[in-house]
Amino acid sequence: MYNLLKGKRGIIFGALDENSIAWKTAERAYEEGAKFVLTNAPIAMRMGQINKLAEKTGAEIIPADATSIEDLENLVKKSIEILGGKLDFVLHSIGMSVNVRKKIHYTESNYDFTTKGWDVSAVSFHKVMSVLYKQDAMNEWGSIVALTYMAAQRVFPDYNDMADNKAYLESIARSFGYFFGTDKKVRVNTISQSPTPTTAGKGVKGFDGFIAYADKMSPLGNATAQDCADYTISLFSDLTRKVTLQNLFHDGGFSNMGVSQSVMEYFEKE
Amino acid sequence: MYNLLKGKRGIIFGALDENSIAWKTAERAYEEGAKFVLTNAPIAMRMGQINKLAEKTGAEIIPADATSIEDLENLVKKSIEILGGKLDFVLHSIGMSVNVRKKIHYTESNYDFTTKGWDVSAVSFHKVMSVLYKQDAMNEWGSIVALTYMAAQRVFPDYNDMADNKAYLESIARSFGYFFGTDKKVRVNTISQSPTPTTAGKGVKGFDGFIAYADKMSPLGNATAQDCADYTISLFSDLTRKVTLQNLFHDGGFSNMGVSQSVMEYFEKE
Amino acid sequence: MYNLLKGKRGIIFGALDENSIAWKTAERAYEEGAKFVLTNAPIAMRMGQINKLAEKTGAEIIPADATSIEDLENLVKKSIEILGGKLDFVLHSIGMSVNVRKKIHYTESNYDFTTKGWDVSAVSFHKVMSVLYKQDAMNEWGSIVALTYMAAQRVFPDYNDMADNKAYLESIARSFGYFFGTDKKVRVNTISQSPTPTTAGKGVKGFDGFIAYADKMSPLGNATAQDCADYTISLFSDLTRKVTLQNLFHDGGFSNMGVSQSVMEYFEKE
Amino acid sequence: MYNLLKGKRGIIFGALDENSIAWKTAERAYEEGAKFVLTNAPIAMRMGQINKLAEKTGAEIIPADATSIEDLENLVKKSIEILGGKLDFVLHSIGMSVNVRKKIHYTESNYDFTTKGWDVSAVSFHKVMSVLYKQDAMNEWGSIVALTYMAAQRVFPDYNDMADNKAYLESIARSFGYFFGTDKKVRVNTISQSPTPTTAGKGVKGFDGFIAYADKMSPLGNATAQDCADYTISLFSDLTRKVTLQNLFHDGGFSNMGVSQSVMEYFEKE
Repeated sequence: MYNLLKGKRGIIFGALDENSIAWKTAERAYEEGAKFVLTNAPIAMRMGQINKLAEKTGAEIIPADATSIEDLENLVKKSIEILGGKLDFVLHSIGMSVNVRKKIHYTESNYDFTTKGWDVSAVSFHKVMSVLYKQDAMNEWGSIVALTYMAAQRVFPDYNDMADNKAYLESIARSFGYFFGTDKKVRVNTISQSPTPTTAGKGVKGFDGFIAYADKMSPLGNATAQDCADYTISLFSDLTRKVTLQNLFHDGGFSNMGVSQSVMEYFEKE
Repeated sequence: MYNLLKGKRGIIFGALDENSIAWKTAERAYEEGAKFVLTNAPIAMRMGQINKLAEKTGAEIIPADATSIEDLENLVKKSIEILGGKLDFVLHSIGMSVNVRKKIHYTESNYDFTTKGWDVSAVSFHKVMSVLYKQDAMNEWGSIVALTYMAAQRVFPDYNDMADNKAYLESIARSFGYFFGTDKKVRVNTISQSPTPTTAGKGVKGFDGFIAYADKMSPLGNATAQDCADYTISLFSDLTRKVTLQNLFHDGGFSNMGVSQSVMEYFEKE
Repeated sequence: MYNLLKGKRGIIFGALDENSIAWKTAERAYEEGAKFVLTNAPIAMRMGQINKLAEKTGAEIIPADATSIEDLENLVKKSIEILGGKLDFVLHSIGMSVNVRKKIHYTESNYDFTTKGWDVSAVSFHKVMSVLYKQDAMNEWGSIVALTYMAAQRVFPDYNDMADNKAYLESIARSFGYFFGTDKKVRVNTISQSPTPTTAGKGVKGFDGFIAYADKMSPLGNATAQDCADYTISLFSDLTRKVTLQNLFHDGGFSNMGVSQSVMEYFEKE
Repeated sequence: MYNLLKGKRGIIFGALDENSIAWKTAERAYEEGAKFVLTNAPIAMRMGQINKLAEKTGAEIIPADATSIEDLENLVKKSIEILGGKLDFVLHSIGMSVNVRKKIHYTESNYDFTTKGWDVSAVSFHKVMSVLYKQDAMNEWGSIVALTYMAAQRVFPDYNDMADNKAYLESIARSFGYFFGTDKKVRVNTISQSPTPTTAGKGVKGFDGFIAYADKMSPLGNATAQDCADYTISLFSDLTRKVTLQNLFHDGGFSNMGVSQSVMEYFEKE
């Protein structure tokens, strides 16, 4: 639409199906002139329809388990070869809690599951950046973005240990973002997105009621996956070169609401 | 460059000379296809070179004292006439402290000066939005941005009562942003910019040392006025429609730094 | 009860009647062994029952308009004489919005009323500290506390311009707190209290529904005026000497909640 | 001194030697009338002088590896037996990063070490609370406190993966604090303490320069271990019953400083 990413190269993690934020971002990045590699865990790819997306966007697919340094090294090395140069953007859209999937209450966490979810959802971001950093794979003024959720700051009871994983993820963005900024002039940010009815999001208990609540609380309503793709494009573009170490709320205003009139109405009726 | 603001109309407050963030933003908005009106206080305009900017960007100038509701009503009404329709963006880049100018220490504030600075720097933002809201002057999905500084959250001793003014300004952005979002689908945000050597900024005591400190503390260095113009364009564009009520740090990462290695070196030498 | 304030001297602003947080704090300070002066605006005192409190706590009353430097100078000077030495603690519990009282919508603020409310609710805190600072009226390791509300950070639509006033007040706490800390070793903090059914609080539109909402959102329920008095005592005591420039949420956990199960139930029913 | 903890029972984790914050807290809790059990990892106890502390405070010692549910179950069960009733307070003062110890740069983390440090420093807090919760071991209005550091919010490059661990720890405080508050009326908070020259703290690279920097940045100077003990007592006392889910900065004001005059002087000299 605007050629905002013309000539830019990237890697997009986490496109599962057309509900995915990563999927919408890939479509938008393609429209803006970018070339990129799509990646996901081998198991996620079997369930998803990523081939359709690859075809549509002229992207190659390289499967990678984001918890495996070996897979990530292969992914980054091959991406640079395929794309013909170093990278300008990376999207990390990966999250999974076994405790959530197994409906284990937060007070009764199974710590093996906790560790697995933490590794997949949070440490993977460190691993991705570590491989990018060591291979010197990013161009100057490149942009790395991970998706997160406000449960990292405030309590949403059903979000379970994903809240803690997101807090860790956001901390990695700052910690690694310092070195990536100072040493390579690359920016690292997280987008804290409205609750989004992706295939993954739907797994969370009481999700529909929660979507409705968040929508009523947000002056502009919930941000959709499509909105998030647009916003992510702005963060990959050259317009935001000096934004780094930030956690950026993209949520129709929810994050700075105490209460909205529409939510209060439920309590005034009584 | 990208046609991000093609067909969009706006008002830009506060362009004084080519060091101004508002000046750079006007230039960039023009490049992106926007039409706009430039405005500043009559007194500021006499000192500045705003005519040069108007000529360059095909903009008309409408002088307005941003503390005068009457002036603002005239400004908004005429802008819509001149531009041929309702507005899509507004930039508020206005700030002034008489206590700072007169070098009065924070502990010894002259309260008439405090009131004057608060009215010009902060309440003016409420007045601008109040007039826009009452005249129903903004298109849906329009964007209102005010410039601020991190002294609203953290202490910078020489920033004096401008810190308190910026805190009030940011609060207005949230308070009014709620109603503008809910009622008109318009977003309202503030950009918390690196210290910038504008003609206004230079008035602050010890500014050069401070610029150097901030630069050393920021992983990507200080954001310039030109960088800020780019970032503001992204916030006026349709890519950021669901971002509202936010205070957005545009500062090379300063705001999330505790200490950088370059700053620590001053203390390790000892 | 614990002798936490034995031998300490202070000034307590804002005790109107026995629903006031300042009233409860005075009672608790008395129990903890403190001596203090009570003060309020002459007009507030006529409506209130402050004499009863003075009698009960052995305190003298000195009327003072907290927006008048002259009144404040007299208050501080006389308090030191009466109490027999410099001060160890000060409580600022003052707030008033004419726009709220007159039920003027936030988007239609009367700016004279805005200015009046800002002066009474926020600038008065600067004035109090300025007089204390210039008269060198505080002992080392003294403690200054002002009461505030979370509307300074997040939107509560009916809170109107008091939100902006509280943001300004909290900024003053940081700005002046820096100088009071560095120069006099005095700490300055704000307590961000649960919505409290004081005589003043009740003036806010829809207050009862809001109290219920806040209570359901807070894991420990709303903090009462009595709870707040206890907490304030801890901040006046020697146990908290190194806490300064902070805005301290005293709210049963509300401030870090995204949503509670009890609130969600209203949305799941649908 | 004040009998603030008279009749209260607790468990204190992490007293190694007399530089430890936990050690100072134990001494102060004893002075305030509390009875408690001391615990530490078997290996830490061998290096430390915890017997001296136990003797001085009339406390029993129960060794426990805080990453072992079995050890924690034994600890909590026995503590209740020994102390003669349910618990009123718990202090978690545990932290360790193998990457820091082995001087591995953050960009080159060994992920086995990362996992070990995360388990010891952060997950242990979840485990402690999970055992307390399941055994219903806390009295109503009890208080659980963990020590943390501002690196959870802002970058301190040498703090390495402890920054991320502390972010996770603080998230656990909120996540678990919600359930502990709602279900048991128990509060959970973290204290974000000044850099403190404990035996553990000294392991961090460039620690002395950093202590000096923090001291110059803080209006009241760094908070000491002794100061922190006092503050912790206030959070265990009945004065702070409605404070929960909070991360409380106890740092002489550092956390809300942008820059102090003393730090600026290093940059103005140039």
